[in-house]
Amino acid sequence: MSITWSRKSSYAVQFKEFGDPCKVLERVEEAVPDTLGADEILVKILAAPINPSDINTIQGTYGIKPSLPAKAGLEGVGEVVEAGPHVKNLEVGNWVLLPGDSWGTWRNFGKGDQKRFRKVSNKLDIVTAATMTVNTPTAYRMLSDFVTMMPGDTFIQNGANSGVGQAAIQIGKSMGLNSINIVRDRPNLKELKDNLKSLGADYVVTEEELRTPVMKDIFAVVPPPKLALNCIGGKNATDMMRHLMKGATMVTYGGMSRQPVIVSTASLIFQDIKVVGFWRTLWAKEHGNTKLDDEMYDYLTKISMEGKLQPPAHNLVPFENYEDAVRMSMESFAGAKQVLVMDERFA
Amino acid sequence: MSITWSRKSSYAVQFKEFGDPCKVLERVEEAVPDTLGADEILVKILAAPINPSDINTIQGTYGIKPSLPAKAGLEGVGEVVEAGPHVKNLEVGNWVLLPGDSWGTWRNFGKGDQKRFRKVSNKLDIVTAATMTVNTPTAYRMLSDFVTMMPGDTFIQNGANSGVGQAAIQIGKSMGLNSINIVRDRPNLKELKDNLKSLGADYVVTEEELRTPVMKDIFAVVPPPKLALNCIGGKNATDMMRHLMKGATMVTYGGMSRQPVIVSTASLIFQDIKVVGFWRTLWAKEHGNTKLDDEMYDYLTKISMEGKLQPPAHNLVPFENYEDAVRMSMESFAGAKQVLVMDERFA
Repeated sequence: MSITWSRKSSYAVQFKEFGDPCKVLERVEEAVPDTLGADEILVKILAAPINPSDINTIQGTYGIKPSLPAKAGLEGVGEVVEAGPHVKNLEVGNWVLLPGDSWGTWRNFGKGDQKRFRKVSNKLDIVTAATMTVNTPTAYRMLSDFVTMMPGDTFIQNGANSGVGQAAIQIGKSMGLNSINIVRDRPNLKELKDNLKSLGADYVVTEEELRTPVMKDIFAVVPPPKLALNCIGGKNATDMMRHLMKGATMVTYGGMSRQPVIVSTASLIFQDIKVVGFWRTLWAKEHGNTKLDDEMYDYLTKISMEGKLQPPAHNLVPFENYEDAVRMSMESFAGAKQVLVMDERFA
Repeated sequence: MSITWSRKSSYAVQFKEFGDPCKVLERVEEAVPDTLGADEILVKILAAPINPSDINTIQGTYGIKPSLPAKAGLEGVGEVVEAGPHVKNLEVGNWVLLPGDSWGTWRNFGKGDQKRFRKVSNKLDIVTAATMTVNTPTAYRMLSDFVTMMPGDTFIQNGANSGVGQAAIQIGKSMGLNSINIVRDRPNLKELKDNLKSLGADYVVTEEELRTPVMKDIFAVVPPPKLALNCIGGKNATDMMRHLMKGATMVTYGGMSRQPVIVSTASLIFQDIKVVGFWRTLWAKEHGNTKLDDEMYDYLTKISMEGKLQPPAHNLVPFENYEDAVRMSMESFAGAKQVLVMDERFA
């Protein structure tokens, strides 16, 4: 086997203390692993995105705090370049989704037990594959697990332009659901609305419009939502809840406003509204590598291949420029997701 | 059949407009029904309590607004005094729970289709029977329907001295659960704590103690709660949520603080806390007269007979003094439930 990769340098982005990602991150050179356990694979990382959860982990404000020093990066896609003798169902050249829990995806090479990797089609778009562990499954699971949604049913979501939001629009459309999508007002609003509609959004409204008769016009056409997806919290989440069908569920997966979720007693008791949360990490812990997980990835791969699930709006950044990418990902209204590219074939 | 009752006057308490119960209620004389449909029964009301939901209904702030003029009273117990020819499973002398939805229980006589009444043992304590439709089932269902509770598991509740709270303590104890009960500080706190403990409360803490190391001492003995029952809302509900086990559910059935339920994003996502509501009226609509309902009443009757479910602390008030009872029920810290007695045998 040609092992040209082993002669290359490998770099990893790490942090020794929690804090401002623009300050605490550093790129360190490390040896490419030259021995593998019988069940291990060696992976050349191809691409890895910068997600809000990466930033929060580095800041030390996420649900899981890694021990320090820690490698950055919670998802990405890689290619198997060597496999131990007991490795099954994975071979050199396969693409794999990378482990999330502190394994560290912002680097060139890494190894681990085969069970920690999921094989995905290498016909997928590279950004689709690199972002297939966090946001896409979050959208899929929230649309699948809390309410029995039938074609013709409606869901509503805020932060609709987020990675999860864009995935939910497309996955929801593939399931025959109507979507009402809430975005913040902004200078290029028309362009944003058109973008989301081109992904399959049925309605795109601003936070202000959510409190106007615009909503009545929508509900003259589609039924009120049985499901709400919330990544904002505060006033916006409360406004959103006012439009839900009796018995509906609001699933919170983020809190960008840094305000809590506020629920009136009446909506809990008389409207039977249910308020729950979803955390991809916990789901993976409980259901990873089960039939549910397999079915999900089959579905997501299928609709990606059919062009029904586009990669998020993104900006490819060569790995060595990771500092720029981190800075850009932290700017408000940045819009496009920053994706680090470790393999020159995809630059 | 002796029909001495038909020569008596029948009175009903009604309201022609929503407003202050001390002002809008009036007692009107009405004819005792002298004809019955084939499926109808005529009932002499024995006793009916004054619940917060009665007060809110009269104020016009409850989840259901009756059409006006409306009869007051949402639960109570009566005795069958006449039955139409097609009535099955009910006969003269049986005790029955009275219908809740606008039928009006604060009166002497009433009739209705047999399906709207549930037969209960006339060996029950009169106050236990009169309060068996609203609070007791609310406590039972909340302890049964949201989380799988096993003996040794813990629940926590605020407003623990309420009718539902006292029922939850006893029903929970009969199920082998540990209870942590939150009450407001008050002059006779020791006495209140002792009362609740005599009902089976494992721990009684004040709202202030909920924010102190007292809680650590408790959790050194019992596991953290998988279930929280909330009838207060606002800050107290938020404090209560802090002590829950991962994946726990908080069920809201009241909002005495008039503050909404405030849930942090982190507790929804990382602690997997679920926030839901329970409304007895909706449950009865969906499950009334089903096997679930039968099983519940069998269980509640059984533990009442065994002395494991005492009637709430109460004050028996002759029906003609209903105005005093309404006023007392609206006073803060009143403690005892006001129960109107329509039948001299129970005065």
